[in-house]
Amino acid sequence: MTEFDAVDVIRTKRDGGRLSDAQIDWVIAAYTSGRVAEEQMSALLMAILLRGMEPGELARWTGAMIASGERMDLSTLDRPTADKHSTGGVGDKITLPLGPVVAACGVAVPQLSGRGLGHTGGTLDKLESIAGWRARLTREEYLAQLREVGAVVCAAGDTLAPADRKLYALRDVTGTVESIPLIASSIMSKKIAEGTAALVLDVKVGSGAFMSTVDDARSLARAMVDLGTAHGVRTVALLTAMDTPLGYAAGHALEVAESVEVLSGGGPADVVELTLALAREMLAAAGVDADPEAALRDGRAMDVWRRMIRAQGGDPDAPLPVAAEIRTITADRDGVLSTVDARAVGVAAWRLGAGRARKEDPVSATAGVLLRAKPGDRVVAGQPLAELHADDPDRFERAEEVIKTGITIGTESATLPLVLDRIAG
Amino acid sequence: MTEFDAVDVIRTKRDGGRLSDAQIDWVIAAYTSGRVAEEQMSALLMAILLRGMEPGELARWTGAMIASGERMDLSTLDRPTADKHSTGGVGDKITLPLGPVVAACGVAVPQLSGRGLGHTGGTLDKLESIAGWRARLTREEYLAQLREVGAVVCAAGDTLAPADRKLYALRDVTGTVESIPLIASSIMSKKIAEGTAALVLDVKVGSGAFMSTVDDARSLARAMVDLGTAHGVRTVALLTAMDTPLGYAAGHALEVAESVEVLSGGGPADVVELTLALAREMLAAAGVDADPEAALRDGRAMDVWRRMIRAQGGDPDAPLPVAAEIRTITADRDGVLSTVDARAVGVAAWRLGAGRARKEDPVSATAGVLLRAKPGDRVVAGQPLAELHADDPDRFERAEEVIKTGITIGTESATLPLVLDRIAG
Repeated sequence: MTEFDAVDVIRTKRDGGRLSDAQIDWVIAAYTSGRVAEEQMSALLMAILLRGMEPGELARWTGAMIASGERMDLSTLDRPTADKHSTGGVGDKITLPLGPVVAACGVAVPQLSGRGLGHTGGTLDKLESIAGWRARLTREEYLAQLREVGAVVCAAGDTLAPADRKLYALRDVTGTVESIPLIASSIMSKKIAEGTAALVLDVKVGSGAFMSTVDDARSLARAMVDLGTAHGVRTVALLTAMDTPLGYAAGHALEVAESVEVLSGGGPADVVELTLALAREMLAAAGVDADPEAALRDGRAMDVWRRMIRAQGGDPDAPLPVAAEIRTITADRDGVLSTVDARAVGVAAWRLGAGRARKEDPVSATAGVLLRAKPGDRVVAGQPLAELHADDPDRFERAEEVIKTGITIGTESATLPLVLDRIAG
Repeated sequence: MTEFDAVDVIRTKRDGGRLSDAQIDWVIAAYTSGRVAEEQMSALLMAILLRGMEPGELARWTGAMIASGERMDLSTLDRPTADKHSTGGVGDKITLPLGPVVAACGVAVPQLSGRGLGHTGGTLDKLESIAGWRARLTREEYLAQLREVGAVVCAAGDTLAPADRKLYALRDVTGTVESIPLIASSIMSKKIAEGTAALVLDVKVGSGAFMSTVDDARSLARAMVDLGTAHGVRTVALLTAMDTPLGYAAGHALEVAESVEVLSGGGPADVVELTLALAREMLAAAGVDADPEAALRDGRAMDVWRRMIRAQGGDPDAPLPVAAEIRTITADRDGVLSTVDARAVGVAAWRLGAGRARKEDPVSATAGVLLRAKPGDRVVAGQPLAELHADDPDRFERAEEVIKTGITIGTESATLPLVLDRIAG
């Protein structure tokens, strides 16, 4: 590989130029191996954040991140593959019912997942509230489960896009997180390296999401769809609303319980709607003509769920843990519940113990918020609006403080559609 | 001092905001003490480079850099003080005659100086070609020499703007050198901390200078004059041409020899002109009415020079070292010498051994370029145009290659004035 001078690479981007393919390949490889220093990469990241990247440049950057590790080959499976990635929202437990639904329709779902940081929960944290369930699988266990169950949710190994691991940690401490090219390449390098042939992106928009405007979300979706397409992955994105939590539950065990309701054929209407919308996209991208609603209704999805949990050491019949303390928030007057703000609920769940401030922090499986009403519902004074769940009653005060800022009662509620837009390759 | 989060400070500047006074004070102090990491500061520096700084913000930033160390107090001297700083040019030996001239007129010149990097030479490197001369003085020696001789050129101690030492090294490896606020604050923090009451800036413009356009040079001059004024130092800047070397010599011992010619009342016209122009500005800023030309003519400046060299261990009568090998470049045709490009001469001198690529590198005292003709001179084919001096003949080829690209013979030469503009507070 041609050797470059890191300062020349930084200057090129600083002055608004396009990094050459060779510069990109070199700087990512040299940073991953430690020959480009952290302070040099952080200057480059800030220059990228402020100057942007052209589509072809970003595709190469993402390709170099993938090439920093191993790209898995799932083509030897006996069925098509499709995965889903969400940019993160409050109460977003969709992966839990979705994987089993899609697998029940004959498509393998290879979901390598992360943990939560900040006010949005991580899928692995949620599943760990199930007794015995473990997030770490060997490669052989992972492939065997994909073959035998068709659905797996586990932690990404160290060989998958190691450049992203270093870049992600660096961006976190250098104010370079909020960049569409850097977000898009981080997400897509991992998803493409994972080996899925089709990918559906759930890009959240609203107060509880990383992207608060539809324009920003659409730009991010477009960048990611283009990256997937450039690297041979059939990719489509849905822009979905995240102004209010998905479903009623925000918290690990609480969300598992709600997901099991959905898999049982019930559950909140919005969670069912989004699960089916994403399942249809995944099946279409995988080229499979099947009805996911039937798989939910007739119990096939529930069967896959139970086998998936069991394959990873979990007991699907074990009772979920419950919080030691519950405090109820009630309506202070009659009216229509106008808003239940996603960010306020997310921060409340975090303060109750469900979230972590640093990635080393432990989380509480039982803490969280269980809504008792949703926007648009008629409520009367004194009626329960939400339950705060915590093991430590000292946590209630600050959680209550923030959730109350997010709940308003008025005369009406503007209900937006859940799926706001669709971006295809 | 209020504690801040480094990421919040970076984000403020990244998003185009003004850093608050408290943020600036904190981030400079925390970086100097190591609590803000190198990769965080480099992201902030890139954001400053691309977003800029308001004048008041830059003044505070510079103040915080000064406050990272000690600001010297020279008010107990029995005479006024004035210093000069040049942004660096090829053949720029002006400090050598200038300090003695101004000191001979009754103004103390407290010159804390640096070493050369790249194609421009450092004053300390030049003086070190004098047998016995040493750049390091204790504080007591420094103050005593200012009192007794009136002129001193020595290395800045570690207590002077230590934030700048760290920032300068970081900027060098992160592509964040070329920023007017960062250049201005680096220069001015050291000069203000040095304790001088008046300061004259020689901001070079042209091929051999850091700033290649008059507009950029004027912006830098304006920023530095404003910073000096904001911190109570009477500051004025001259913009001077650096398209061709100053004088005939570029190289350490060669430049000392040319400076001694000037102090003897002779020397190249441009070196004499610029020395006197800067001396008049320094005397005016220090409030002293004296004629620097008389001090050159009647030998008073030479007396100060000899005492200054002796005070720092040097022998002003010792012969200067000469290079082992000399190669002469001759004119390939008759005509008028149109251009002798400053950068080409500077790079040639560097390749001959006069410059360093990294700050740990040693330099050769004898290596360099001695011009035998200046732009505007009539020349005939075969006439010597320049001598290349080196101890190692292997260095001639690459030096000759570059200097030839910078020498052109035509029918006329456009001669520009040496002093292009004057910027006052």
